Amino acid sequence: MLVVMQAQATEDQVRAVCQKIESLGYRAHSMPGAQRTAIGITGNKSEVESGTLEEMPGVQEVIRVTKPYKLVSRDTKPDNTIIKFPAAHANGSPVTIGGPALAIVAGPCAIENRDQAFAVAERVHRAGAQFFRGGAYKPRTSPYSFQGLGEEGLRIMADIRQQFGMKIITEAIDHESLDLVEEYADMIQIGARNMQNFSLLKRAGRARKPVLLKRGMSATLEEFLMAAEYIMSEGNYNVALCERGVRTFADHTRNTLDLSVVPAVQRLSHLPILVDPSHGTGKRNKVTPLSRAAVAVGADGLMVEVHNQPDQAMSDGPQSLFPDQFDTLMEQVRQIAAVVGRTVPAIGVSEPVAASK
Amino acid sequence: MLVVMQAQATEDQVRAVCQKIESLGYRAHSMPGAQRTAIGITGNKSEVESGTLEEMPGVQEVIRVTKPYKLVSRDTKPDNTIIKFPAAHANGSPVTIGGPALAIVAGPCAIENRDQAFAVAERVHRAGAQFFRGGAYKPRTSPYSFQGLGEEGLRIMADIRQQFGMKIITEAIDHESLDLVEEYADMIQIGARNMQNFSLLKRAGRARKPVLLKRGMSATLEEFLMAAEYIMSEGNYNVALCERGVRTFADHTRNTLDLSVVPAVQRLSHLPILVDPSHGTGKRNKVTPLSRAAVAVGADGLMVEVHNQPDQAMSDGPQSLFPDQFDTLMEQVRQIAAVVGRTVPAIGVSEPVAASK
Amino acid sequence: MLVVMQAQATEDQVRAVCQKIESLGYRAHSMPGAQRTAIGITGNKSEVESGTLEEMPGVQEVIRVTKPYKLVSRDTKPDNTIIKFPAAHANGSPVTIGGPALAIVAGPCAIENRDQAFAVAERVHRAGAQFFRGGAYKPRTSPYSFQGLGEEGLRIMADIRQQFGMKIITEAIDHESLDLVEEYADMIQIGARNMQNFSLLKRAGRARKPVLLKRGMSATLEEFLMAAEYIMSEGNYNVALCERGVRTFADHTRNTLDLSVVPAVQRLSHLPILVDPSHGTGKRNKVTPLSRAAVAVGADGLMVEVHNQPDQAMSDGPQSLFPDQFDTLMEQVRQIAAVVGRTVPAIGVSEPVAASK
Amino acid sequence: MLVVMQAQATEDQVRAVCQKIESLGYRAHSMPGAQRTAIGITGNKSEVESGTLEEMPGVQEVIRVTKPYKLVSRDTKPDNTIIKFPAAHANGSPVTIGGPALAIVAGPCAIENRDQAFAVAERVHRAGAQFFRGGAYKPRTSPYSFQGLGEEGLRIMADIRQQFGMKIITEAIDHESLDLVEEYADMIQIGARNMQNFSLLKRAGRARKPVLLKRGMSATLEEFLMAAEYIMSEGNYNVALCERGVRTFADHTRNTLDLSVVPAVQRLSHLPILVDPSHGTGKRNKVTPLSRAAVAVGADGLMVEVHNQPDQAMSDGPQSLFPDQFDTLMEQVRQIAAVVGRTVPAIGVSEPVAASK
Repeated sequence: MLVVMQAQATEDQVRAVCQKIESLGYRAHSMPGAQRTAIGITGNKSEVESGTLEEMPGVQEVIRVTKPYKLVSRDTKPDNTIIKFPAAHANGSPVTIGGPALAIVAGPCAIENRDQAFAVAERVHRAGAQFFRGGAYKPRTSPYSFQGLGEEGLRIMADIRQQFGMKIITEAIDHESLDLVEEYADMIQIGARNMQNFSLLKRAGRARKPVLLKRGMSATLEEFLMAAEYIMSEGNYNVALCERGVRTFADHTRNTLDLSVVPAVQRLSHLPILVDPSHGTGKRNKVTPLSRAAVAVGADGLMVEVHNQPDQAMSDGPQSLFPDQFDTLMEQVRQIAAVVGRTVPAIGVSEPVAASK
Repeated sequence: MLVVMQAQATEDQVRAVCQKIESLGYRAHSMPGAQRTAIGITGNKSEVESGTLEEMPGVQEVIRVTKPYKLVSRDTKPDNTIIKFPAAHANGSPVTIGGPALAIVAGPCAIENRDQAFAVAERVHRAGAQFFRGGAYKPRTSPYSFQGLGEEGLRIMADIRQQFGMKIITEAIDHESLDLVEEYADMIQIGARNMQNFSLLKRAGRARKPVLLKRGMSATLEEFLMAAEYIMSEGNYNVALCERGVRTFADHTRNTLDLSVVPAVQRLSHLPILVDPSHGTGKRNKVTPLSRAAVAVGADGLMVEVHNQPDQAMSDGPQSLFPDQFDTLMEQVRQIAAVVGRTVPAIGVSEPVAASK
Repeated sequence: MLVVMQAQATEDQVRAVCQKIESLGYRAHSMPGAQRTAIGITGNKSEVESGTLEEMPGVQEVIRVTKPYKLVSRDTKPDNTIIKFPAAHANGSPVTIGGPALAIVAGPCAIENRDQAFAVAERVHRAGAQFFRGGAYKPRTSPYSFQGLGEEGLRIMADIRQQFGMKIITEAIDHESLDLVEEYADMIQIGARNMQNFSLLKRAGRARKPVLLKRGMSATLEEFLMAAEYIMSEGNYNVALCERGVRTFADHTRNTLDLSVVPAVQRLSHLPILVDPSHGTGKRNKVTPLSRAAVAVGADGLMVEVHNQPDQAMSDGPQSLFPDQFDTLMEQVRQIAAVVGRTVPAIGVSEPVAASK
Repeated sequence: MLVVMQAQATEDQVRAVCQKIESLGYRAHSMPGAQRTAIGITGNKSEVESGTLEEMPGVQEVIRVTKPYKLVSRDTKPDNTIIKFPAAHANGSPVTIGGPALAIVAGPCAIENRDQAFAVAERVHRAGAQFFRGGAYKPRTSPYSFQGLGEEGLRIMADIRQQFGMKIITEAIDHESLDLVEEYADMIQIGARNMQNFSLLKRAGRARKPVLLKRGMSATLEEFLMAAEYIMSEGNYNVALCERGVRTFADHTRNTLDLSVVPAVQRLSHLPILVDPSHGTGKRNKVTPLSRAAVAVGADGLMVEVHNQPDQAMSDGPQSLFPDQFDTLMEQVRQIAAVVGRTVPAIGVSEPVAASK
């Protein structure tokens, strides 16, 4: 904390602020300057409420200095976190998020039925995705929109894992659905709208599965990291972040994809960060260019919506790629990845994993 | 829905779009213009996914026209909703939100202990507040910050109602706390961070108590109304809205209080809307001016944080008023209310309600 | 300036930063804390470029402390600035901006022709406006839109001053138009789009007429004050500010009117500040409620668009009030003003000033 | 234009709106729907002022449909614009913006003196930049900051062109400086703060040199294109756009670089678009990752700040690259360019161009 005094503050006022600080159990460091005095505060274990000081006579401003996050910070853990998922079968290899291989997560916005889900899964698996995404519980803006298949959707995704060996990532929207997602899926997604649903974050922190945390619509970097801190503070250290666009005045895309948050996160935290250009742009024709950009900026992976029949999708059709477009995306992304020293999984063999048992 | 064709779109392309529309079960209305053709779509019960059409050859843009909210709309219910709370005791009078009397909600950010809560309650009651606010479950950005007293806090507030006759409004942050809030309080608050926690909204929609819904940090008016629609769609029609500042680039206040949303809500919806200038500004010295402005713009009430010792508050101290400041605020607000044809409760008698039994 | 070191920074790194600071001619104040060390910098006449220090080993962050504005600051001049305009005629009284009387500025968006201008002027004068606004040079988003009458518009406004005794405020968009505005008008308006047109600000700073400076679409409070500082640094101390809405994600109004900037400006600066609810909302039906709110929050005046035939206006018709609506606005505003200790000019006599000569 | 009627609008109200439209000289197309009626308007050469209709009884909303830009639009000119600059000397080759070769613009924020400018120029030339940037007229937030060398700076840049054969791009801030920039430089830059300085845009439109137009801090895509339209409407068709970050709530970078605007511009307009990651992030350590991303997303070039001694720069030091960092950037960018089918100029020969004469 730093207290900046007004230019005309008297010595008595400076002294009073110092005494107040000391009375609260901290140390005050007075720094008289050419124009005004500033007072540094140290020794604060917990945060000093700035209001106490801000309203004292002669005080211009109180500036917070120390960052409130601990477990997410590189100060605490300098090495990158790599989340490991066991191999799907005996002769398979484990997959990771945060390692040299980019994590490619693909699938439809929502699981609509078994046929649709398998059709998409078959294609994204073949194109090289190691993770399958699909919503069983959908947080929709309207109560009258399709809300997801629930547990039936989770069962379909479990069968997709069985069939193709892909890891399953799906969203939980409350404690009840989180129980089920924890049971069926490989990674629990917390959506943008729930980034500050602290009750849900704590529950995710007690889960035995890794968590994918999406950035809230208007979350600052600090709030984003603090949400991860909530999960980690309950004991779950396997957390990956995901940038999915923020809300701004700009209206040519659904959200404004903030790619600069990727190097910013990597500087402050050891957690991996993915990018979701589907929600980040909301427009099919912008998903591939922004996917290239996300890999070029240094993201640890991509999360992309793919649908076999986007024009009949029950949600987010306009931003879902056709499978052929996803093939092209993977090809371009693979080349960009090589430039930044990352790899993208080779094109999968279409032979189903289940058959190898 | 309206499909705008490109200037150079061919007649075949226009025809193809019309056929697609009709094949989806809607009616297409072609409107050839000087520069380009637009095609109106009618008959859509559910929403057409715009992506289907947006990607067709010759299409420039697809514009959504119909509003998705129903129950919250003035189209559905032209008269203002007035939420009624029964009188606290036999010779008391009922209080309302949405009627000619402004609803004044005041109290500390968090219930910290019985003494603090009663000290604040005594003062805000005496100044005229009909509603007492206080957090028992606090959604804090940091997991290491004070998270509220939980049920003990609810019990303290129930005793405050008993003592002073004020109605209790307090926040629920998940299903579990909502069960308890529904039991102890008079009105259930859904906080800004949970405005799109649809699972919680649905649960609130099944509650037997009225709901105060705060606007999310970056919620558009439509999203705000749709969140209320979620609650109403489950059968709970007693919903009041609350503007509490939105997130913008501006850094001189904690949030940017958007007072224009008050007349905007009143034009589109029959639901009452309060204003919270404490969170809306985050600075004590701006709470009173913005409270005056909120009443002047036509809000149905105010929600204000008051603390007997703000500099020792466990949360949001810098934005909490001293009780004396709240007295001044009430006096000023009362005069402004008169200008806009509203009333503010007279200064309460300090004689406790409990004694009258 | 304050340099915050990383938690694991070595003593050598701290020493190196201190030496660097001293080598740049400043004093370094090292403050070792429980978790990390912070280093205060004092003695900086000019601003230290933070980049120098930010990239040094062990440095976490560099925080700027001193505010860059001087002449606009209350530190420099504690008393409110009151801009005085001489009385229009012998038995008239002078008008002011920043004094106890609210400054009411009204008129059409653009001067379209003599009849329209006089028709509006007659009505707003009668309703009590002391200032007449009207654009002769219009900064329009499209080059194909009406760009204003130029000098002919200025001449019409000069005749309106002659006829009704109102002071004329009109916008200058470049050096050439500023020369003419300075000649014809009583106050030079710098529009939102030119708030950081520093060449124009300097020219306005050399003008012999007061300046009304509108806030830029996305200007922070500091940038807004620095723009005023540009004008004052050239010697023109008669500057009034004007909040006119900022750009946010919110789409229910054209801009988001930020009324909290009024008390924020008044705390930091001695300059008066008006509010323009016409541009601030962009919607006729929100101008009156937000005008009431602006006066209630403590603004020094209002700037309102009025048109005798808004539906035939050549620009900004949708946000222009009908003259009858302006009468109502003035009546409501007059009552609110009384509550906050301000006055609003009595309803003007329709007898033309010119006749009294 | 489309007029959406309220659900309960009467047939008479619909008829009145249609008659109003026809009376204004347009055609009305009534489209009765299941819930409400919409009315299409065609034949509008100039834009209908929406306010006229918005306030009529029964009207819910008026939606603008046609886009106001013409010359910048791909509708008008389907092929990409390629701006050509003549070769610097007899055996040199011409350089372009918008062609297959990426345009690399590099140099210091401001020209501080001859030595600094030549030192930077020598390095960026050797690394492959075809364009040299440097400010002679600096739009600084504070009037007390370094404002640029003026014409002396232009002369230094002209000598750099002579010496190294690079094209010169520099900013004009008013008519006077534009006259000089037009004389000395190869391309006239209009800065973000002047993007809606329409008087300056018109002057640039009459210049004989190409114009680089930077996006304003909070400019929508439409406003950005309309600013280019201003220049083109005066006859100068050689316009390149430049994304340089927009203002949002996010505080981890100086601005939020909006890379999605690149494909958005390319879809709507034939004009080339560069990206400036230096202003776009404001932080040296983010310039290289975001440069890679900009090329990956499909930008037509980069504009990067490089300084030989960033820690002594007179402006924007913290975001300027060291020359060695620029070398690395160019190497990485060259590889990414290859993936998206673009080329980056080979590393320049250090032999001065002047010597070849």
